[in-house]
Order: sequence, then structure tokens, then C-alpha cells
Amino acid sequence: MKLFDGGRAPNPRRVRIFLAEKGINVPLETVDMTALGHRSDEITKRNPLQRLPVLELDDGTALSESVAICRYFEELHPEPPLMGTDAQDKAIVEMWQRRIEFHLLLGVANVFRHTHPAMIEWEVPQIAEFAEANRPKVMKILAWLDAELATRPFIAGERFTIADITAMIALDFMKPARLQVPENHHHLLAWHQKTKARPSASA
Amino acid sequence: MKLFDGGRAPNPRRVRIFLAEKGINVPLETVDMTALGHRSDEITKRNPLQRLPVLELDDGTALSESVAICRYFEELHPEPPLMGTDAQDKAIVEMWQRRIEFHLLLGVANVFRHTHPAMIEWEVPQIAEFAEANRPKVMKILAWLDAELATRPFIAGERFTIADITAMIALDFMKPARLQVPENHHHLLAWHQKTKARPSASA
Repeated sequence: MKLFDGGRAPNPRRVRIFLAEKGINVPLETVDMTALGHRSDEITKRNPLQRLPVLELDDGTALSESVAICRYFEELHPEPPLMGTDAQDKAIVEMWQRRIEFHLLLGVANVFRHTHPAMIEWEVPQIAEFAEANRPKVMKILAWLDAELATRPFIAGERFTIADITAMIALDFMKPARLQVPENHHHLLAWHQKTKARPSASA
Repeated sequence: MKLFDGGRAPNPRRVRIFLAEKGINVPLETVDMTALGHRSDEITKRNPLQRLPVLELDDGTALSESVAICRYFEELHPEPPLMGTDAQDKAIVEMWQRRIEFHLLLGVANVFRHTHPAMIEWEVPQIAEFAEANRPKVMKILAWLDAELATRPFIAGERFTIADITAMIALDFMKPARLQVPENHHHLLAWHQKTKARPSASA
């Protein structure tokens, strides 16, 4: 088994943090995304969408999509549970993971991809108006999350889950997107500090 | 238990088809989305994101996000499996479900939401240039899917899964988005006909 890893980008980091929380070691093969290594034949034949990370299993199966890779490890190594325990809890974790992914991470990514000079060859065409339209939507989600985190320690409830990992990479991704969490979002900022202080955050 | 249903929109239909494939009956409460019923207090207190469907459990828990609702039923009623069987199969189904969702359904939705006159109050601002940028991306994914479906009967392999449901609602959603599957995509078109012919498709 080996993980084709993409370095600092949000999705590769999401999977590495998940593995660190599980205490699972997987051999990494680092792909240089700034040199467009994710568009190489080596990656394209494993994931025609040319996105990283990609997990290659011992039978040659190539798994892509970060959350699908996490699902594979969650099923094989259920402890500690990062994707829920019983039916209801699994659904709640998935609800939050998807809310964060579609409404926060995607919004931040839209701002980043449609404004950042480094993305000119990745996002064609870059549409500044679309980036601008995403900014207030991201800010609205942040305000909602801040209010939610006044009621519980983690995004999906009493336990740290994959929803926290996705939210952390989304907040960290705000910096290159030139977005900032407002200073009065105390609950969200405290949650972010607490999450960044976990050993897994440096994975 | 009751499902706040949103009628003809893609996500409400996705969950109804999933339930029909499982043979599960859930009491429906239909919400009129054209009258903006999804923005009512009744829905907003259950899903602050004001999206449908929402599943209310007997203990009052409100589950939203279509795939999370499907996960809940998959865990309680594993047969027939629509989200995979063992760890590897579950990961492969999730990979395909996400590929279809992020690269096909989201692309079609982007075209629809940023061009259709009925969406003027839903997608603010509508950005025609962004819709146009999504068209060729959708067409590229369709060509890829057509080639993939030359090798197997269903999106994720030998079995009908949630990835087929998501792909069907995405293709059906192409009509109001004024997008068309090219006539030479024989494998994709045959798969679409076969999937639309299942009894669940009318759910």
C-alpha cells in the first residue's frame, strides 16, 4: 500500500491528519503539485481527474477522493471512531462533514482558485466576480459555526471527528484565500486553536 | 419519523429513489420549494442551511444532507447494499459517488443556478460567465463516464449503488440546465435508459 501525497494542499493534508488521529502509518510518495506532478501519467492512470491524494492498495486498486480514502481506513481501523459509531451518529457526522465541505471548504476554495495568481493555469478562466460572490457566503457560514460551537466542544458533537479535520483545513486554507475569521467569533477561534494544538495538525 | 421532502428538485429525488431501492417507506411531508417553503421557520429550525430534504427522527433529531440521510438508512437496512459491502467496496462506491457529485452534479447545478430565470432569487448574483465555464467541464466528465461505462454495467462496478442514483439525477438535471448528452456517448446513454427504467426512478 502507498499513498501518493500532494504536500501542503488541503485534501492531502486532510488524509494525513486523519491517519495521524488513527495512529496509522502508510508509506507516502510525495508528488510535487507546484510542478504539476498530479498531471503526470503516473497519477493520471490512477486518477483520471488528476487530483491528490491517491491511495494504491496492494492489489493495484487506486482509491481517490479524500473522504473515500478515510472511509477505507475507518472501516478497517474503527478506533478511535472519526466517522461516527451507530447509524444515527454516523449520519450526524456525515451531515456535518458535508455541510463543512460544501458550504465552507468549497466556498474558500472558490475564492482561492478564482483570485490567486498561482491558480491561473489551474482554474481556467478565473472569474473574479465569482470569487467575490463567495466571500459573503463564507462569512455567513463562519458566523453560524461560531454560534454552533457555543453549544458543544466539536463540530459534530462531543467527540473529535472528520468534520473537525475538514473544518480545520478549511480555516487554514482561508489564509492564502485572503479571508479572515472575524475577531468576535470567540467560540470558532477557540475551537480552531484547540484543533491546531492536536499532534495530528502537523501531519 | 418523517421526511420533509422537496418534490422535483434533485436532492429530494435522490433520497426518495434510495428509499425505493431499499423498499423502505417513510412518511413524507411535502414542502413547496417554488413557494420558498424551504425557507420557512419550520424547515430553518431543522436545517439552518434551508436545504431539503430533512429527515426528522422520533427523538426530534433533524438530519439533513441527502447522502447523510442515505447513510442512516444504509446502516439500519444494509440490504440491498447501495453504499458498498466491505471496506474496499465501500471506499470505491464513495469515491464514485463523490466524483459524480463534485464533477458532474455540481457542474450541472452551477450551469442551472447561474443561468435559469427561476433561480434569480436563489443564486445571487447569477454569473453567466461562471455558468459558461462549467459547460465544457461537464461535457468532459460525460465523455469520461461514457468510456468508463464501456467496461462495466454500473458507475461503481457490477452492482447498482448510490453513485448510479446521483449520476441519474445529475443527467436528468441537465435538461432544465439546457445541457445534452452527446449522441455518440452510447454507453452512457444506454446506462441512463436502463437506470430510468428501474421502478425506483419514478419515486
